[in-house]
Amino acid sequence: MTNETRARDVAIVGSGLVGAGWGIAFARAGFTVRVFDSDQSVAKGAIPWAVRQLETLHAHGLLAESPQVVAQRFILAQDLREAISGADYVQESILERVDIKRKLFEQLDAVLEDATIVGSSSSGIPASAFANDLRISPRVLISHPVNPPYLIPIVELVPSTQTSREAVEFAEALMLSIGQSVVHVHKEIEGFVLNRLQAALLREAWALQRDGVASCEDIDKTVRDGLGWRWSFMGPFETIDLNAPGGVADYANRLDPLYHSIAQSRTADGPWDADLIARIEQDRRQHLAADELAARRDWRDQRLMELAADRKARKR
Amino acid sequence: MTNETRARDVAIVGSGLVGAGWGIAFARAGFTVRVFDSDQSVAKGAIPWAVRQLETLHAHGLLAESPQVVAQRFILAQDLREAISGADYVQESILERVDIKRKLFEQLDAVLEDATIVGSSSSGIPASAFANDLRISPRVLISHPVNPPYLIPIVELVPSTQTSREAVEFAEALMLSIGQSVVHVHKEIEGFVLNRLQAALLREAWALQRDGVASCEDIDKTVRDGLGWRWSFMGPFETIDLNAPGGVADYANRLDPLYHSIAQSRTADGPWDADLIARIEQDRRQHLAADELAARRDWRDQRLMELAADRKARKR
Repeated sequence: MTNETRARDVAIVGSGLVGAGWGIAFARAGFTVRVFDSDQSVAKGAIPWAVRQLETLHAHGLLAESPQVVAQRFILAQDLREAISGADYVQESILERVDIKRKLFEQLDAVLEDATIVGSSSSGIPASAFANDLRISPRVLISHPVNPPYLIPIVELVPSTQTSREAVEFAEALMLSIGQSVVHVHKEIEGFVLNRLQAALLREAWALQRDGVASCEDIDKTVRDGLGWRWSFMGPFETIDLNAPGGVADYANRLDPLYHSIAQSRTADGPWDADLIARIEQDRRQHLAADELAARRDWRDQRLMELAADRKARKR
Repeated sequence: MTNETRARDVAIVGSGLVGAGWGIAFARAGFTVRVFDSDQSVAKGAIPWAVRQLETLHAHGLLAESPQVVAQRFILAQDLREAISGADYVQESILERVDIKRKLFEQLDAVLEDATIVGSSSSGIPASAFANDLRISPRVLISHPVNPPYLIPIVELVPSTQTSREAVEFAEALMLSIGQSVVHVHKEIEGFVLNRLQAALLREAWALQRDGVASCEDIDKTVRDGLGWRWSFMGPFETIDLNAPGGVADYANRLDPLYHSIAQSRTADGPWDADLIARIEQDRRQHLAADELAARRDWRDQRLMELAADRKARKR
């Protein structure tokens, strides 16, 4: 198999926001998408929700076909077996708990067809923790998206200790074929790459607020009016590579003493205690009332759609 | 003085890339800009360079007037005294070394007029390290930009232990009047806010590459095709506030165990050694040859100008 995957049928197992979002990404690319959730009401709500998103995507020029045509590719499955029947790929997006995931993977082990690959949306738990020592273990890996996957292209592929190379290659080709941006995580490290990078920045941000160095709002400004601009189209390595006349080594030799000193000043950073969490909550609520969260999420998604449309235009 | 600053004259002391960039930000806003550098060739090159940038800005709709009109506001000063004569504000952007900065501030102490405020572009050294115990100490603070300041709006204002409240208020009003986004840093912490956030993310990125978890290119992808999108228009606090149904406290209660565990796994992180720096350099050079760095910087500035134009349009 080359970059052209032959997969045409996928199953969505766990159809909450993440699973249904994956469904949109696959259906938009021409796949038949069978949707299953052990909670019937979640399963039933998923496709109508996806259709509404398709209409919004279409309005932003992010859908090549009509929403109606794409919507017809969704099929509500009555049970797990029906969902995975004939599927080339299963995207699992159930609750992030080892025992619940293990139980599902044991069920899948009993019924999965011989060639089907399974990707888990797990954002932190590695596949070895719930998918090893099964018949299907070589065909299971982590395919961790950022929400929503039909707007933000990144996906982290993380094999377990028992995942086959073929399964990773299949998942890579599949993800590229639907327009995702693939990152290979070679070790099962806690939080993978994306959440580790986010964690590092967040812990520093929380500590700066806690210590009275700056307010949440000013820390947010520092990123949205400063640091975040370059990171939206270049990564951190390319950013520093361009930020010193001689490239990244030149930059590292100049800045490592400062950065190392900063890192050393945070070695004893503890958990976020209840008081700190309450203060941050209070600070945020001054800038955005609790009953405005939903409207602000719509605003965020609007901005993400504009970014996605911009990316799409650049690729043409 | 209110948000309307009455300042009309500024001096640029140190006219390399950062100083000349500040000059553009001020001249564009209508200020007369006197430019001085102790290195005559740097001083002479600054204004022609700025004029070329003005032409590019104009081509991107980022200049309300003609480049010629704005360019006329630049004056090449023959010495420090001429530069600061009549200036309401001095932006210092000389070499980042305590002894060199101290020497300049002692010179300024002898000649600065009574009301002039001085902001230093220092990106890491706090003002207390070079501007205390002088006549002018209450009027000196850090005004730390991201390069280039005429495109990326953020500026960190950091008072020394001797800076007056009035000087901070003056600098805030001045920066807002030229369209910058002001962050108040209340304590003289190493790296201030921006570089501390960048340092935290960079150290995790370097460690992930060093440990074979992911390549530089894949770590860059994780940010530019994932994490960085939201950070280009929301800060990290707003991002997580919108990422859990109940807001930021809800998010913190869910994610702190993971984030704390990730933080603990990095407590013993040492300096970047020569071998690691060489490996990162080699990795980057595979994606961008050394002789392509300059062209890629032009590409970056093009992207930044598009982002700046987008921001400007949203404000209308």
